[in-house]
Amino acid sequence: MNKIILALDEPLDYKILKDISSQVAGIKIGWPLILEQGLEGIKNILKNFDNNIIFDLKLADIDSTMIKITTHLKNLGDSFIVHAFVGYNESIRELKEFLDKENKKMYLVSSMSHKGWNDNFYPYIKEVIKMTNPYGLVAPATRPKILKTVKKDFPEKIIISPGIGAQGAKIGDALCNGANYEIIGRSIYNSKDPIGTILEFQKIQEERLNECKRAETR
Amino acid sequence: MNKIILALDEPLDYKILKDISSQVAGIKIGWPLILEQGLEGIKNILKNFDNNIIFDLKLADIDSTMIKITTHLKNLGDSFIVHAFVGYNESIRELKEFLDKENKKMYLVSSMSHKGWNDNFYPYIKEVIKMTNPYGLVAPATRPKILKTVKKDFPEKIIISPGIGAQGAKIGDALCNGANYEIIGRSIYNSKDPIGTILEFQKIQEERLNECKRAETR
Repeated sequence: MNKIILALDEPLDYKILKDISSQVAGIKIGWPLILEQGLEGIKNILKNFDNNIIFDLKLADIDSTMIKITTHLKNLGDSFIVHAFVGYNESIRELKEFLDKENKKMYLVSSMSHKGWNDNFYPYIKEVIKMTNPYGLVAPATRPKILKTVKKDFPEKIIISPGIGAQGAKIGDALCNGANYEIIGRSIYNSKDPIGTILEFQKIQEERLNECKRAETR
Repeated sequence: MNKIILALDEPLDYKILKDISSQVAGIKIGWPLILEQGLEGIKNILKNFDNNIIFDLKLADIDSTMIKITTHLKNLGDSFIVHAFVGYNESIRELKEFLDKENKKMYLVSSMSHKGWNDNFYPYIKEVIKMTNPYGLVAPATRPKILKTVKKDFPEKIIISPGIGAQGAKIGDALCNGANYEIIGRSIYNSKDPIGTILEFQKIQEERLNECKRAETR
């Protein structure tokens, strides 16, 4: 089972990352690492990583600005995380057209993992997702209810879930609630044995998935 | 009259920028220039610019991520633009506390200039602004109605307005509708004579402001 996306918030040696490459479904990289390492540094870290690379930029701007940003990064990765709430016209629509042309994927944020996020806007966000038809969605492990709703509304979309570990959700819970992949960071990259930790987590995910499938069929 | 913030979307020679320094109310720098120039490049461009520097990052993430991002940039500038939409708890609240401690300013986005932005959420955004009490707000020159509403709701906040020029609003209109500063980019940095252009725009702003004041008192 390969249902972990590694959130690489701190640099990992490219040799370790090479070994991890086949063990995870991808890695997620955000602004802090980009600022710390610069584009050349990111390129170096990723040089032996042969798998999906998702840039978690939480883009939320007008079309031209987002297209400029992704232009700088498109040769370093495969996918971009974008906020649905900025709306379609003169923003996400134009970015989606650009990323399609470049064979890059878009994930839209359907909900977030922190307490302050307001899910009352989900009906609007759902409309933006429908119009955009992105490759995937981000939905939080910390909010089972909205995660289940997103899965029900968009059963064919790839759903990736943050919020596991430090933010409170348990490994495997998001998979039970409809996520395709769980995003896990520091408990892997801070581990003395990242690959051992990944294998351990995958075992937990599998057990948890079996448990909840059994519960469903009872 | 000094009511222009220069949107520096492309690098300007630091000598020109030095001369511009006293003619504008500040400059605004976004992710595209940061990606293009790197932190060292940005530092070089800004080395003789002795005025406000606003990082327009449109931050929209959880607290820890936004704090990491602003930590990397806090020694290079004065202010950060953040999306109110992400909500207060575990997000903007913690970032505000951090920026206050660092003597940095926060601007919250109250509305955006592009067609797809949905102002139905303004009542919620207004609540987030009230809770946060930021230094300033971003409100679009392209939407006079919402700009006037924001000014009425937050008369004491510094309002900066994008959307002038390429996006359709005319110089001076946002000032008439309640903005404190107008953000202007390419028509200045693409000009052969940036300072001459700034002086010309300031004259237009002044005339426009006098016109609309006269219209009000009629």
